[in-house]
Amino acid sequence: MNNEQSNFLSHGCPVCVSAEEQILDLLDQKNVDLEIVHFAEAKGRIGEAQNLGVKSVPALVTNGQVLHINFGASMEDVKKAVGVA
Amino acid sequence: MNNEQSNFLSHGCPVCVSAEEQILDLLDQKNVDLEIVHFAEAKGRIGEAQNLGVKSVPALVTNGQVLHINFGASMEDVKKAVGVA
Repeated sequence: MNNEQSNFLSHGCPVCVSAEEQILDLLDQKNVDLEIVHFAEAKGRIGEAQNLGVKSVPALVTNGQVLHINFGASMEDVKKAVGVA
Repeated sequence: MNNEQSNFLSHGCPVCVSAEEQILDLLDQKNVDLEIVHFAEAKGRIGEAQNLGVKSVPALVTNGQVLHINFGASMEDVKKAVGVA
């Protein structure tokens, strides 16, 4: 997750996806380089997110600053759900 | 809070303001009609927010859908802080 990018992180479950859709509608997609990361398909990036201070999903990370959104699931629950805990 | 608008709700304290700045940087301000509401200066709108399901601040409300961000303070704490509880 580089600093020029915003990353929307989620497990990919329906709770996260509805927040994802809402955020995507609002973002300035011409000027914001947005990467969407679904941990269900990107298990290897869970550690990277936790190192940035991500504690729950969905979360929006920009320039290393984390915005936790609507407390969908803790990272521990995400790890269990994707089979890495 | 009408449906054509997005409302960023916060108490106006430093925790909320940093999330506010981060969100404002990302929003498509040409296409999103954004109203910022600081309850410290708009006590009368606390009830309106709670009726929409806002439970904590900062929060972003769009088309009646609430995104709670970074759990800064509960609405009960906001009410105490602005002297309406």
